[in-house]
Amino acid sequence: MTTLYLLSTGPGASDYLPPLAVKALANSQHLVAYGLYLALLGNLTNNKQCHELPLGEEVERARLALTLASEGNTTALISSGDIGIYAMATLVFELLDQQQQLTKSSAWDNITIEVIPGISAIQALASRVGAPIAHDFCTISLSDLLTPWEVIENRLQAAGKGDFVIAFYNPVSRKRQWQLEQARQILLNYREAKTPVIIGKNLTRKNEAITHTTLQDLDIKQVDMLTLVMVGNSESKRIETSQQQWVYTPRGYGKTL
Amino acid sequence: MTTLYLLSTGPGASDYLPPLAVKALANSQHLVAYGLYLALLGNLTNNKQCHELPLGEEVERARLALTLASEGNTTALISSGDIGIYAMATLVFELLDQQQQLTKSSAWDNITIEVIPGISAIQALASRVGAPIAHDFCTISLSDLLTPWEVIENRLQAAGKGDFVIAFYNPVSRKRQWQLEQARQILLNYREAKTPVIIGKNLTRKNEAITHTTLQDLDIKQVDMLTLVMVGNSESKRIETSQQQWVYTPRGYGKTL
Repeated sequence: MTTLYLLSTGPGASDYLPPLAVKALANSQHLVAYGLYLALLGNLTNNKQCHELPLGEEVERARLALTLASEGNTTALISSGDIGIYAMATLVFELLDQQQQLTKSSAWDNITIEVIPGISAIQALASRVGAPIAHDFCTISLSDLLTPWEVIENRLQAAGKGDFVIAFYNPVSRKRQWQLEQARQILLNYREAKTPVIIGKNLTRKNEAITHTTLQDLDIKQVDMLTLVMVGNSESKRIETSQQQWVYTPRGYGKTL
Repeated sequence: MTTLYLLSTGPGASDYLPPLAVKALANSQHLVAYGLYLALLGNLTNNKQCHELPLGEEVERARLALTLASEGNTTALISSGDIGIYAMATLVFELLDQQQQLTKSSAWDNITIEVIPGISAIQALASRVGAPIAHDFCTISLSDLLTPWEVIENRLQAAGKGDFVIAFYNPVSRKRQWQLEQARQILLNYREAKTPVIIGKNLTRKNEAITHTTLQDLDIKQVDMLTLVMVGNSESKRIETSQQQWVYTPRGYGKTL
């Protein structure tokens, strides 16, 4: 049995890479990833066979990693953030599932899979601004490439009704510009105009930028593909110390303080 | 300015502790935590002044950490998992906020706060069973000690309507037993009886136990205080390889595979 690691590299800086991930990299002969993620790993990729497949070739990356591992090569399929959250891990299982249905015995069944979690963008952004996701929260991807917009809109309505703190993954792309504005409009039916909104760009990386705004003033021109957008719930509060602005969502201790 | 680290130690095993957290521990003179979390850190706590306050004394822990730091002691307030997710970070900001309102100039305003995120239980459990949170998900705490049950029930209805994958934090405690069963009943109005449910206990720690079940068969006797419960959405699938059972939530690549 050869191991296929589904390996998370966290938000960017190598300071976020736990020993578990470093060991998995050390064990791997082959690394499969989008090129930028390999660059962020620096010399941890030395002496590895690196397979860089561009954005858009996610299925090909998952397939290649499965095939390399099934041929006896210890392999790491790599995503930034947490590979289990809007990333590559699920594609591997979807391909395994499909293969099982097509051919009763799978050529990939001799692989041991080990998933290594990592810090996702929502956590990196939360850590930069205080404690915005300290109570019930949800994540919603605004990409309608693979999910029909009606499903996304239904989730936006539900998140509004349920008063969840919300993190928007894939808020915009070069081709998708209107979804974030639509989401903002929907949430304004449920939340006050002054609800705290935080925009995090290049989190933990060079040129990191954090912007504090409100649901009223959120401007999609401040947002790009490398950005996470977080919207507070009805309880989220902003405070300012001599150090910086913070946002926190209380858990309800207020009455007991 | 003295630093107060709000420090996450991840799910348990030290293999999950990134260099960022190890450095913060090394820098700290004082550690404030619930005793079990210090025990999990092993010799990283050597030569530190350790302040162990029991469960239930969360406000006292946050206050003590702020006071120690304001007196010039580099201090780490420690939570397991991610300190920003259902944990201590938010209490620090709530206390800062309260102090600012009570006394215009805060004795705690000379502190630099640095939040260090960590792997939360939802990610540890997801990594053990595949990729269940690969698409939109939410977290809901079932503890009604500080949150009215009506708020929690409203969130359960919303999560059901929105078809989010759901992770239940604080599913039960010695005194709270009925909430999880109530949640199960509510979700059965929205999801099929065979919806995958995963129960994770002592994640990454000694005696880790993962149980695969369904929404129909979820038995609250399988759940205790050290447990996370995850409920798939309408798309979540279970597959079995020679290695183990897995659960994944597809992102919609199916049509293109």
